[in-house]
Amino acid sequence: MIKPIKVTITGAAGHIGYALAFRVASGEMFGPDQPVILRLLEIPQALSSLNGVGMELEDCALPLLHDIVLTDDPGIGFRETDYAILIGAKARGKGMERKDLISDNAKIFSAQGKAINDHASGDVRVLVVGNPANTNALIAAANAPDLENKQFTAMTRLDHNRALGQLANKTNKLVADITRMTIWGNHSMTQYPDISNCRIGGASALELVTRDWAIDHFIPRIQRRGGEIIEARGLSSAASAADAVVDHVRDWALGTPDGDWVSMSVRSDGSYGVSEDVVFSFPVTCKAGEYEIVQGLELDDLSQARLKASEKELLEERAIIQELL
Amino acid sequence: MIKPIKVTITGAAGHIGYALAFRVASGEMFGPDQPVILRLLEIPQALSSLNGVGMELEDCALPLLHDIVLTDDPGIGFRETDYAILIGAKARGKGMERKDLISDNAKIFSAQGKAINDHASGDVRVLVVGNPANTNALIAAANAPDLENKQFTAMTRLDHNRALGQLANKTNKLVADITRMTIWGNHSMTQYPDISNCRIGGASALELVTRDWAIDHFIPRIQRRGGEIIEARGLSSAASAADAVVDHVRDWALGTPDGDWVSMSVRSDGSYGVSEDVVFSFPVTCKAGEYEIVQGLELDDLSQARLKASEKELLEERAIIQELL
Repeated sequence: MIKPIKVTITGAAGHIGYALAFRVASGEMFGPDQPVILRLLEIPQALSSLNGVGMELEDCALPLLHDIVLTDDPGIGFRETDYAILIGAKARGKGMERKDLISDNAKIFSAQGKAINDHASGDVRVLVVGNPANTNALIAAANAPDLENKQFTAMTRLDHNRALGQLANKTNKLVADITRMTIWGNHSMTQYPDISNCRIGGASALELVTRDWAIDHFIPRIQRRGGEIIEARGLSSAASAADAVVDHVRDWALGTPDGDWVSMSVRSDGSYGVSEDVVFSFPVTCKAGEYEIVQGLELDDLSQARLKASEKELLEERAIIQELL
Repeated sequence: MIKPIKVTITGAAGHIGYALAFRVASGEMFGPDQPVILRLLEIPQALSSLNGVGMELEDCALPLLHDIVLTDDPGIGFRETDYAILIGAKARGKGMERKDLISDNAKIFSAQGKAINDHASGDVRVLVVGNPANTNALIAAANAPDLENKQFTAMTRLDHNRALGQLANKTNKLVADITRMTIWGNHSMTQYPDISNCRIGGASALELVTRDWAIDHFIPRIQRRGGEIIEARGLSSAASAADAVVDHVRDWALGTPDGDWVSMSVRSDGSYGVSEDVVFSFPVTCKAGEYEIVQGLELDDLSQARLKASEKELLEERAIIQELL
């Protein structure tokens, strides 16, 4: 019998958590032979709804789902967990200042960092989805002194996948034919979706699309895609965000394909001149649970400026929550 | 290149459709090597929301998803489709008589049967999820004169999976260890979840639970599980229903495991004395896209009576919509 992997999902009764839990439990994250135990964490007000999610999971009779734990206690939710997926966050209310949103979430994620430090497996891997995801990941890691920074990541995989989708659409190719997409920076409007290294079939993407299309259409569309979805659905992205979580964790755990990379927000090690004080999206390759930032890519002046702008935003976010680090 | 399978989902912007589309597109229904094309059909009022679903699917960059068609035109939605999953249906409004609900849905499903007959692949397989599912499947098939009754099924797999989940819970076993669960009858309160043939590990389920538990707790709980979920979530079952769709179609297409069976509502052939005039849930085995009703199971008097009660309900439903057959 293969030992089950324990996966904690916070905000598990929310739209993304609901879309995610069933996909993890059905084997999409760790493959068709790997049992899982779900530890679903919610705030007290959402416990009835979470109970419903638990019942529906039970109703799927999923052979890989060996146990379900439902709780509002972080000490129980993170107990001995192998993967912590932090989705639950305070959403921006009407008229709320961005600064207050960052501060309020900083409190949540500092507490979760502590709880993960005290209760999770020493080998835990953390993915922050709740916004501002990059800075929340920075805070969580800072509050987990027994763990390493590299165990904490934030999600830019949804942006990465959106970029693949748009480029496939534009070039009339299959996404499976595109490699080496990169999202640089913060999971925010300052992110830099970069196709300059993309290969499509045997060709460079830049042979198939114009630079003007990339700058005037592609980049702003990826930056604003979240808003486009909300306008159409009346709800923010849920199933696509959950899909990106599956991709991020699966590739981190099981590895990226040879010759390709993915985008993950990780603590900067100074690569590409990015301050080591921030969690920044880089192109990374993964193998057996470890990521490595891809080195040696060329960045022209415009690209450098975009990285700097996103770094500046992240340093500003950091300054707001400095006292929690 | 493997030829993509075309899958039509009606009501694709609804809760079940939304939970389902991403799982089909990610390869859970037909396996990790089989490309799919999704044809998503909605009513005109839901087209904006459907457009959002289409954008989110694009945002997942799923390598198996070769195309997405979004439409409110059944002629386009069902065009050359291989699998038609009919989820969209009129829900029971406050104070609405059951008879009116059945009649209103009968019109929807007779029109869809005609559209499938005229536009789908001649080899199409149809799964009706929208309630009253069994009678809707009967109507759809009756309005598709060029197709065979055996191409039309209704879903009792959610009940089947719920039953597996409850029995696993009660006996503290894994669902993977349980075989030969059966749901008989109508997907309604008259359904008969039957554990009398179940095997758990090497044992008969009836050696591990009491007959009283089965009759007093298990059967009514499965019959009323839908209501229990609504009470907890404030919403009806969505992800678990989508999961059951994946299971139903996958097993129909790819086959059931040796020594086990599943529950599907299919046109009765008179097995177990059930009238040939109804679509009834039976234990079935599947192989390469064909199902066969399991023969020769023993039914005691109580079981016989339960089958008769569900058959009676289905014959009453049939009488209401007689003019559409």
